[in-house]
Amino acid sequence: MSTTTTPVPTTDTTALQDLAAQLRVDSIRASTSAGSGHPTSSLSAADLLAVLMSRHLRYDWEEPDNPANDHLIFSKGHASPLIYSVFKAAGQVGEEELMTGYRRFGSRLQGHPTPVLPWVDVATGSLGQGLPDGVGIALAGKYLDKLPYRVWVLCGDSELAEGSIWEAVDKASHYQLDNVVAIVDVNRLGQRGPTELGWDLDAYARRFKAFGARVITIDGHDLAQIDAAMADAENGDGRPTVILARTVKGKGVPQIEDSPDWHGKPLPEEIAGPAIATLGGVRNDVVSGPGPRELPATPQQNATAVELPRYEIGQEMATRKAYGAALTAVGRADPKVVALDAEVSNSTGTGDFVKALPERYFEMYIAEQQLIGAATGLSVRGYKPFASTFAAFLTRAFDFVRMGAISQAALRIAGSHAGVEIGADGPSQMALEDLAMMRAVEGSTVLYPSDATSTADLVARMAATDGISYLRTTRGGYPVLYGSDESFPIGGSKVLRSGDQVTIVGAGVTVHQALAAAERLAGQGIEATVIDAYSVKPLDAATIAGAVRATGGRLVVAEDHHAQGGLGEAVLSGLAGAGIAGLDVAHLAVRGIPGSGTGAELLHWAGIDADGIVAAARRLIG
Amino acid sequence: MSTTTTPVPTTDTTALQDLAAQLRVDSIRASTSAGSGHPTSSLSAADLLAVLMSRHLRYDWEEPDNPANDHLIFSKGHASPLIYSVFKAAGQVGEEELMTGYRRFGSRLQGHPTPVLPWVDVATGSLGQGLPDGVGIALAGKYLDKLPYRVWVLCGDSELAEGSIWEAVDKASHYQLDNVVAIVDVNRLGQRGPTELGWDLDAYARRFKAFGARVITIDGHDLAQIDAAMADAENGDGRPTVILARTVKGKGVPQIEDSPDWHGKPLPEEIAGPAIATLGGVRNDVVSGPGPRELPATPQQNATAVELPRYEIGQEMATRKAYGAALTAVGRADPKVVALDAEVSNSTGTGDFVKALPERYFEMYIAEQQLIGAATGLSVRGYKPFASTFAAFLTRAFDFVRMGAISQAALRIAGSHAGVEIGADGPSQMALEDLAMMRAVEGSTVLYPSDATSTADLVARMAATDGISYLRTTRGGYPVLYGSDESFPIGGSKVLRSGDQVTIVGAGVTVHQALAAAERLAGQGIEATVIDAYSVKPLDAATIAGAVRATGGRLVVAEDHHAQGGLGEAVLSGLAGAGIAGLDVAHLAVRGIPGSGTGAELLHWAGIDADGIVAAARRLIG
Repeated sequence: MSTTTTPVPTTDTTALQDLAAQLRVDSIRASTSAGSGHPTSSLSAADLLAVLMSRHLRYDWEEPDNPANDHLIFSKGHASPLIYSVFKAAGQVGEEELMTGYRRFGSRLQGHPTPVLPWVDVATGSLGQGLPDGVGIALAGKYLDKLPYRVWVLCGDSELAEGSIWEAVDKASHYQLDNVVAIVDVNRLGQRGPTELGWDLDAYARRFKAFGARVITIDGHDLAQIDAAMADAENGDGRPTVILARTVKGKGVPQIEDSPDWHGKPLPEEIAGPAIATLGGVRNDVVSGPGPRELPATPQQNATAVELPRYEIGQEMATRKAYGAALTAVGRADPKVVALDAEVSNSTGTGDFVKALPERYFEMYIAEQQLIGAATGLSVRGYKPFASTFAAFLTRAFDFVRMGAISQAALRIAGSHAGVEIGADGPSQMALEDLAMMRAVEGSTVLYPSDATSTADLVARMAATDGISYLRTTRGGYPVLYGSDESFPIGGSKVLRSGDQVTIVGAGVTVHQALAAAERLAGQGIEATVIDAYSVKPLDAATIAGAVRATGGRLVVAEDHHAQGGLGEAVLSGLAGAGIAGLDVAHLAVRGIPGSGTGAELLHWAGIDADGIVAAARRLIG
Repeated sequence: MSTTTTPVPTTDTTALQDLAAQLRVDSIRASTSAGSGHPTSSLSAADLLAVLMSRHLRYDWEEPDNPANDHLIFSKGHASPLIYSVFKAAGQVGEEELMTGYRRFGSRLQGHPTPVLPWVDVATGSLGQGLPDGVGIALAGKYLDKLPYRVWVLCGDSELAEGSIWEAVDKASHYQLDNVVAIVDVNRLGQRGPTELGWDLDAYARRFKAFGARVITIDGHDLAQIDAAMADAENGDGRPTVILARTVKGKGVPQIEDSPDWHGKPLPEEIAGPAIATLGGVRNDVVSGPGPRELPATPQQNATAVELPRYEIGQEMATRKAYGAALTAVGRADPKVVALDAEVSNSTGTGDFVKALPERYFEMYIAEQQLIGAATGLSVRGYKPFASTFAAFLTRAFDFVRMGAISQAALRIAGSHAGVEIGADGPSQMALEDLAMMRAVEGSTVLYPSDATSTADLVARMAATDGISYLRTTRGGYPVLYGSDESFPIGGSKVLRSGDQVTIVGAGVTVHQALAAAERLAGQGIEATVIDAYSVKPLDAATIAGAVRATGGRLVVAEDHHAQGGLGEAVLSGLAGAGIAGLDVAHLAVRGIPGSGTGAELLHWAGIDADGIVAAARRLIG
């Protein structure tokens, strides 16, 4: 491992020029050979990357997991020809891989970079996400790792129209993240024409400054200016640094420079060939940049056994509060657990963690995209982020969750105030689409506990779960159903009552309604099986199928969610292969736009309370 | 209808003070009577609203649909006690409704305002959305209606942390919307404590100015300053106006003023009673504010019959391109049709409309939240917005779509580049969750055509469809399957081939794979029914159920989407009540994270191409 402490090589301009030319040539060659890709968006940033990788990126290419490494995020992920050319110049990607792999099936050199490559922290390609993710990595560096690494984020100018960029600058400034350097490649051209602000670097500078950043404006093709700006960026003064680089799209290939007609188009051979020749032809130089800074000795903190809160059966407790208590317990046991919230920690339960472990809590204020972006960045550094807000408002961050899955990030997300159960606040605050959203995320785990005991156990399991995991919690207090020694494996379910006439499946709040319904049905001589499907994904399809078979194919599913993509459809999917003769399903869900009312009134209005379940069960029995 | 042209009444400060006191008293009373709500967030803005409604809001309360009316949007929707108190002071909501309806079941005075009230344009309560919506109303006023109405948006300070606010200010400035006035109630306290910037009005001012707004900073409890600022706001200079009002949360009830402990809490009787007395007790004054400006005579433009493009069977055409052509045809026929895109109109097909009807196109650049917010605002004014971007990036706007449904907005949304079919660009650009997202939206219509003819017909139907409608289009070109006289009713499907051994259901790109599979199966002596489920929601469950029954219960569903919440689960839901004996389903969907490749390679990798369908059909037949 290199432990050089000052930038070293490639001080001579010729070498930097040669490297920039090589990056340009390789960007052109890779995309032309693939027949697609974004050479022009790569050419504009080639000089920036040549200087960065040679002189300022403190990185050990042989050891991408070195904690002291700087981080390089291509927020403008479509410039993948450039980043892959950088990896080639770093000696990590070979000529053949670049020329025959780029954008091809089975290759790790995908159209936009993803962490299937060891030097890529997060997947990019949905614009405006690299900087929010970078803020998370920088929070880890400054407040948790306490390591002097820098986070360099290459942004496009088009993506500055995304509000998430401003959420990120605001948080970088609020948290004094002078370890973040955003380099904006202002080539003035978007996909379909000029950007809003073109080359008005002053306008961009005013915005970044107003949001608390330090701004350095340069000619993005002047190697000396680039070098000076990047050196200056290392002088942290408590503010994030933004290098605004005026650049030319297609720079280096005069006939396409600054043209709006060449976005996302590979150069045809007749342009590529002469352009490559003019740029000096193919080079295969390998650059030795400055290695990482010295890694301070940091004591390893190990996790200890979790002591979860214990609850008495029958005790009333909201699952959102049980979430907060469990998160605090998990956080006490595992120093890698961190928490974030979007300014509603006193409602989501996370407030407990804030009080107990404030040094591992990050307030994201009302900025849900940044909430998930920061969690993604923290997960890059091996932390276990739990991010919470009202479940309804997680819809704000869907694109970040989706990209988090592609980034192979381990994100624990908790959404409170699910469903019509919340009552008086009305439909804007009611999550009725969150199960559909979270189930559709690749590789996700979706949990929806009905009581405090199961919540506690599931929170502990989330801490050990890879990928995107989601916990849905309820506003109101409901009785504890399970003894504290009960365990709740992911993919499991609980049979709370057994009967032979109808199976009732619920999750969360509808488990309590199902139990009440079963009690009333028993009074009418009808015996029902009640299943708590606390693990919505993966679903315990085998247990449910067995119960439905044993109750003559009769099944009531009740969920506090719209009818699409939630528990009901999860159950139907789970039973699709089970070949249950005479399957007859009543799917009770929220149909229509709710208003205000008490939780009980609204559960009744939606037909998902005990009354609705009893009526549905009786209809099935006929 | 009032056509007064200058602000009239309530010039005397006593009357304004009395009105402000009445609004405070009613805000306290309504929330205390309901036992929940946000009185303190109402009290901070009461003076602002007293002056606005008395002196500057040009509005005919008796005729909320008057096109000349100003628009009032409560972006801080949790301050609903205040807006309902305003409606009472306007003579529209009675004492009894306010005191017994607020937040109660069945009442139109919900916890957050929604358009079940005739004076409410859009539902608010998910913060950061009122201003983006207001931008859409202002775009209509300035560029389409050409009416001098103003759009007044009351924002909270906490919600300025949402990136969507900055997307909105950026667009308001880009489009020179000097008919927008944002009034920011800077009471320095959010839900769980101080905001990031507290009372640093200078910091806010720098941000708004940098984004192109004109800023007026005032004491939000000084009636004269408020009046002067609002009068000044009417002097448009091509920039949107932002009134930054320094206020005190809980203002008017000294014992809770500026306290972080009273967010979202109704005052108990022992505080409410004396406070109301101190404020002068209950008043029932009705205020006559300035009426709307004179309505210029505008020629009514009527829609004519649409002439849709016609395609030859077998002709290759991408549905995204057919979308653009159809949208242009629909736009030519109906002057209410407008289009918006997030800077990818050359990819989504919308570029055709941009060229043909530039005066009805609004470029939103890469700001998907603002894209849907603007569409929502345009729909408030009776326009028929079609908003397009890559389907993957619509996830960015999920919260806006969800709120659009609660707003009862008619939004037509087109998402291109669906699924792994897009090929080389890789997973960040592949929509694999969009059907789940859009199906879960209340009252939505979800369409996924397989060819150019059906795309054209469905686009014309979307123009006549209420609620949220979504069209999913495909990147690659595929043969036209239908003659131009074929019609595609919403809720319908097409049986493209009939057999008796297995039913294959596809939509979009998998229809072509299903047809190829059926052809190959026929060569192996297996006759398949192939159904094009172009209407994913509502689904033609009856036709599918009939086909499945006629093929011995054997069903293959293939979709270019993750397995959750999409076509497969829609079909399972549709069949759940059909009681099909021996139902045996193979659900082919995208499982795992794709990489790059050709469309064909990736359809094969996912197992949703003809090979995968043939194999699944043969497994079912056994």
